[in-house]
Amino acid sequence: MSESPQISVPASVLDQLAFDANGLVPAIVQDAVTNEILMVAWMDRAAFLRTLETGKACYYSRSRKSAWMKGESSGHLQILREVRIDCDGDVVLLKVEQLGGIACHTGRRNCFFRKLEDGAWITEFEPIKSAAEMYGER
Amino acid sequence: MSESPQISVPASVLDQLAFDANGLVPAIVQDAVTNEILMVAWMDRAAFLRTLETGKACYYSRSRKSAWMKGESSGHLQILREVRIDCDGDVVLLKVEQLGGIACHTGRRNCFFRKLEDGAWITEFEPIKSAAEMYGER
Repeated sequence: MSESPQISVPASVLDQLAFDANGLVPAIVQDAVTNEILMVAWMDRAAFLRTLETGKACYYSRSRKSAWMKGESSGHLQILREVRIDCDGDVVLLKVEQLGGIACHTGRRNCFFRKLEDGAWITEFEPIKSAAEMYGER
Repeated sequence: MSESPQISVPASVLDQLAFDANGLVPAIVQDAVTNEILMVAWMDRAAFLRTLETGKACYYSRSRKSAWMKGESSGHLQILREVRIDCDGDVVLLKVEQLGGIACHTGRRNCFFRKLEDGAWITEFEPIKSAAEMYGER
């Protein structure tokens, strides 16, 4: 299965991650080519391992209390290009190729579409796809 | 005081921020010119307001349980160029001009100097300054 290589992750790799009291670290997701910040999500140990094993970004949803692979419903998978951690080991940085060019669940290319301008949040860019187009009728 | 303009922040700006159970949001700090991710820190409501009021990045230290302005000891201030929030309002993105070109307390230009390569974390770049040079003898 070339799409899901089973790699073994040395304990020394996980040892450098400082998960919080809930067993989570924030993961910043950055476009590997443009350096645009796409989104932020959370990872538990299993999500981190699954990301390395599949080569696709996997997270842990704090609201749904469950694992998810980005794009498994919408097709907008994030193909892993690089993994970094910060000096304290409590933040993960993923550089990815964003399939479909849409990272945000609102259908926008990234989640940071609101910008502070003259004392108000303005929406800087509009959805590329609607929720129905991304996830089908519900 | 041109360096510390007192601006009033409308309640509607703060209302869009979703602070966590501890009253904090993570703030991603990105170089306004290169889009390089410099660091991640935490903000409470006061740090967010102080950042807008001073035009310099201010945070809340979870370990020291106190407010800090980035660069107040080292001189490596972060001059605010842009503020964004994500779709859920629970992550802040600051675009800044990093004075001195050093964002990390280790003396490196950013905190994400460790990269996963062949099953190990490698250190990709070295400190520009030592701790003694940055903070003086202690």
